[in-house]
Amino acid sequence: MLKITIYNEYKHEREDEACAAVYPDGIHSVLQSFIEADKDCAIRIFTVDNVNTELTDEILADTDVCIWWGHMAHELVADETAARVAEHVLKGMGAIFLHSAHMSKPFIRLMGTSCTLKWREVGEKEILWVVDPLHPVAQGIGKYIELEHEEMYGEHFDIPEPDSLVFIGWFKGGNVFRSGCAYRRGMGRVFYFQPGHEMYPTYKNPSIQKVILNAVGWVAPVRRIDALDCPQCEVPIMEI
Amino acid sequence: MLKITIYNEYKHEREDEACAAVYPDGIHSVLQSFIEADKDCAIRIFTVDNVNTELTDEILADTDVCIWWGHMAHELVADETAARVAEHVLKGMGAIFLHSAHMSKPFIRLMGTSCTLKWREVGEKEILWVVDPLHPVAQGIGKYIELEHEEMYGEHFDIPEPDSLVFIGWFKGGNVFRSGCAYRRGMGRVFYFQPGHEMYPTYKNPSIQKVILNAVGWVAPVRRIDALDCPQCEVPIMEI
Amino acid sequence: MLKITIYNEYKHEREDEACAAVYPDGIHSVLQSFIEADKDCAIRIFTVDNVNTELTDEILADTDVCIWWGHMAHELVADETAARVAEHVLKGMGAIFLHSAHMSKPFIRLMGTSCTLKWREVGEKEILWVVDPLHPVAQGIGKYIELEHEEMYGEHFDIPEPDSLVFIGWFKGGNVFRSGCAYRRGMGRVFYFQPGHEMYPTYKNPSIQKVILNAVGWVAPVRRIDALDCPQCEVPIMEI
Amino acid sequence: MLKITIYNEYKHEREDEACAAVYPDGIHSVLQSFIEADKDCAIRIFTVDNVNTELTDEILADTDVCIWWGHMAHELVADETAARVAEHVLKGMGAIFLHSAHMSKPFIRLMGTSCTLKWREVGEKEILWVVDPLHPVAQGIGKYIELEHEEMYGEHFDIPEPDSLVFIGWFKGGNVFRSGCAYRRGMGRVFYFQPGHEMYPTYKNPSIQKVILNAVGWVAPVRRIDALDCPQCEVPIMEI
Repeated sequence: MLKITIYNEYKHEREDEACAAVYPDGIHSVLQSFIEADKDCAIRIFTVDNVNTELTDEILADTDVCIWWGHMAHELVADETAARVAEHVLKGMGAIFLHSAHMSKPFIRLMGTSCTLKWREVGEKEILWVVDPLHPVAQGIGKYIELEHEEMYGEHFDIPEPDSLVFIGWFKGGNVFRSGCAYRRGMGRVFYFQPGHEMYPTYKNPSIQKVILNAVGWVAPVRRIDALDCPQCEVPIMEI
Repeated sequence: MLKITIYNEYKHEREDEACAAVYPDGIHSVLQSFIEADKDCAIRIFTVDNVNTELTDEILADTDVCIWWGHMAHELVADETAARVAEHVLKGMGAIFLHSAHMSKPFIRLMGTSCTLKWREVGEKEILWVVDPLHPVAQGIGKYIELEHEEMYGEHFDIPEPDSLVFIGWFKGGNVFRSGCAYRRGMGRVFYFQPGHEMYPTYKNPSIQKVILNAVGWVAPVRRIDALDCPQCEVPIMEI
Repeated sequence: MLKITIYNEYKHEREDEACAAVYPDGIHSVLQSFIEADKDCAIRIFTVDNVNTELTDEILADTDVCIWWGHMAHELVADETAARVAEHVLKGMGAIFLHSAHMSKPFIRLMGTSCTLKWREVGEKEILWVVDPLHPVAQGIGKYIELEHEEMYGEHFDIPEPDSLVFIGWFKGGNVFRSGCAYRRGMGRVFYFQPGHEMYPTYKNPSIQKVILNAVGWVAPVRRIDALDCPQCEVPIMEI
Repeated sequence: MLKITIYNEYKHEREDEACAAVYPDGIHSVLQSFIEADKDCAIRIFTVDNVNTELTDEILADTDVCIWWGHMAHELVADETAARVAEHVLKGMGAIFLHSAHMSKPFIRLMGTSCTLKWREVGEKEILWVVDPLHPVAQGIGKYIELEHEEMYGEHFDIPEPDSLVFIGWFKGGNVFRSGCAYRRGMGRVFYFQPGHEMYPTYKNPSIQKVILNAVGWVAPVRRIDALDCPQCEVPIMEI
């Protein structure tokens, strides 16, 4: 059984009526619902209210996959919390960063870059093109995914070159974006997926859900400490 | 004229007689000397004594290439200092991390991983093989570089997969290492180069010097702020 | 002085009036003209009429950079000619493949894949976004290049994952494309650049010219046979 | 049930007594035996005697994974045969190239480079280090694999930079090698694995067998024609 931890900031949905109309129970509840329908899993939810106090080392050590959505309250996540999350990724916990989590503290820490980008919020059309059709995250997806309305995220996106670039996003207003980026960091896998503005029902789209389910499967640990069981340690001469 | 900033911790050379015999004026003075002999440059030196107080934002903004050697005093470099250095790399400053700088705070911050490795200090032979013969850092180097005595640094090395793997190190005692690793991070280039234990005259080896000179040339900024001149900013629809 | 060899199929310009109106002296003459204006170079031109008979081993051995444009007559280039070109790339000759040269025999041979793509010829707008702003090929280019009219080339593009993805193309009709792809193959560098349909004056656009000039500089050999001076050969035990 | 096709040249084992003592029924029979013991599969065997006549398009279309071992008779494999094998890889067939298959025609065709290397046959010790510990091919393998006797294959190895470098080989005589290289080519996956000289019982080593079994699982098709169902074709404007 997969242990999944979802962090959803959960501010927009409580503070903005239009957003609440789209996600009345929060983005996390939509994520939880379609993941539970597909996977044998146990899901824990954290929000900006309790992430610093309750997303403990113990919880993270018991997490296979951590999914992160944040936007306006990145700064309310303590540096220590972000460090804990990143450290567990390096030890093998999978991590999926959704949409504006590109500027969340754990993601920036794992990438080492500013993770800045260009954006525009006019609800324009997006088409997500598969460019790595054999990547596990793209399985069951056709050649592309269409989204009637999304926030534009555009290049230049200041990230390390992905280990695999899985999706490139096309936006009606003239921009492109590296929308699906796969990384290994330490013993953990990381997937960044751009769609998911809080004002649109993106996470209710079956193709978007399929990508996230695939990503859960792909980042789930294959082995955790094995290669790191004597980190930064002295070793004898091999028997040669 | 190239503005170069060298950070050398400068503790081993002052505290250990055997090390002082190899580098009587510090590792930095050997680096400075062969770089000045080759490049039109101005070099500033910082040590653990003044790195936190004098390696200021102004100095870094006036630096093209920052070279970093540290080992036993990584913790004495303040987090704020490390953050300053990393931030300037993202803005375009080149950076070269030498030997045990693999666990320096700025390098770990730029990589996002633990950067741990296996090591052994028995003065064994190393052979550095060129595996990316067209990389600018490998120019003028033959097929390999031999070092009679080096500290062994061995896999698994917990780094992000390099953008280019330039050298693989062979150690007599049975280990291998990704010894020359090239990265882009933000608008800056980063090169990690493994040789350079403080007890051996590695930095006096002409081939090692050639690699470092090449690396200085390669990481020197080609353009700095251009692509980042409106970081994380809203942009209008293109005129289409 | 740079020795440059341009292959332009030169059929459209001679057989189609509309195309001749854009490139009256052939695409090659426009390429030649802006390259000669910028570089100390000697340029040789070959077309489908003489490529098999005159683009000899001797010419290729005396070529630093080979630029290739072909479209409707790929099959008229003999397999032996394609093999010669590819072999010289592996020995260090730089190569730039333009537009529909994505299905030329030498490019397919160097890539090892089918190099197929989706296309549409309606003269739609293209915007080429820089995604690797430090790559030598992107120097002096701003954040993007706009082309009023181009043929659409779209994903999925069946190429090996580029060593560096430099440009992503956006097309008004809804598609994206990996438009600027940099590779090392053997001792040679290869750059594929998508713009350049024969019906539009793309090669007269100063930004497109700048990219091609940059590419000429980047693929020009840095060293040729060095690493291959004993290819597939037996070697003795090292002196260890 | 997995359809597996093994090509073993099968000349050394029939022509050299010492080799026959190690692999009395041919390398293929050892491969077949440990794969059948682990996988639900049907295995077909081809040798240099029938590869050109019997390894047909129909067989390849019915193959999930093709394993290739060849050495002294690469030239006896017809160009058409090699083209067929490579074409089926591009359509989704997995391929594993073992040891001296690095210079087999299908491998060279898929790589686009010369695939030359340095070699030495003195039966020296090899240690294969895992450098991508999360790669599916490295699962269940510890930090390294030791082989008492192997042929040395050394850098520089003229291959395209692997999508993932999984193993680096250390050889007692002073050389290193990129011994485990993973690629995507078209819709197919390719794994090159260096160990397996015909004079040593390498394929009877349980760790080597584990790597090959992992590779069979990894290269087995995840989806085949999907992304290529309209190769090089015209497409209409998207509905935007």
